[in-house]
Amino acid sequence: MAGCLFCSIISGEVPSFTVASTEECVAFLDTRPVFKGHVLVVPREHVVTLADLAAPLLEPLFGFAQRLSVAAEKGLGAGGSFVAMNNKVSQSVAHLHVHVVPRTKGDGLRGFFWPRTKYESDAEAESYASRLADALPGHA
Amino acid sequence: MAGCLFCSIISGEVPSFTVASTEECVAFLDTRPVFKGHVLVVPREHVVTLADLAAPLLEPLFGFAQRLSVAAEKGLGAGGSFVAMNNKVSQSVAHLHVHVVPRTKGDGLRGFFWPRTKYESDAEAESYASRLADALPGHA
Repeated sequence: MAGCLFCSIISGEVPSFTVASTEECVAFLDTRPVFKGHVLVVPREHVVTLADLAAPLLEPLFGFAQRLSVAAEKGLGAGGSFVAMNNKVSQSVAHLHVHVVPRTKGDGLRGFFWPRTKYESDAEAESYASRLADALPGHA
Repeated sequence: MAGCLFCSIISGEVPSFTVASTEECVAFLDTRPVFKGHVLVVPREHVVTLADLAAPLLEPLFGFAQRLSVAAEKGLGAGGSFVAMNNKVSQSVAHLHVHVVPRTKGDGLRGFFWPRTKYESDAEAESYASRLADALPGHA
């Protein structure tokens, strides 16, 4: 899509440090990594959020992210990985991208495990579960 | 697996607020949500990390997470969602779980977009890209 940074990277118009690519996806380094070796995995097709990704692309995208999470450990000696995507809120580029971030114990990334809250009652929790269930695509 | 909290939730031995389930996966509320409506999506099969997930389960797991990200917006009025998993480091339960967290602009969750670093040189960036590429499963 014209004006999309990631489409321009995919087309080669904007340079990037490409890690690998497949028929459906490209993986390149985030230029402002959380930790060095932080990769963005994107579908070649311009879609904005996870919700917009066509079903046939789920396995190619997440299978590739899976392989990159293995590579973070094997290639960089990471102790683990963080695999994440932001949809709309906190999404810096409006082209779906899966972050694959190498992690090390004690690396200081508490990530999103920070501001935990709790439900006021079981009834409140149940109401949240119900509202989500009722809103599920395909729900009868 | 004996002693696994999420296997016990899947079997019903430990109660949870279930949102929905499929043949391959179960989605239930995180009891200590980042934000209310925070869901954990787990494969019924006990696997520890994303790397351990068999290829045929990629589409069922991430397709379900995708639908739950839609439900977070439609059902809870969220502005977006955060979909993430920790592998080994920061992984609180050793059974693969995908977090689907409803997000609202200005909700205070800077998430992992916090401690950004940068590469010292293009050569350093290239070396990281190469090490990852060489370590990719299936790389010749």
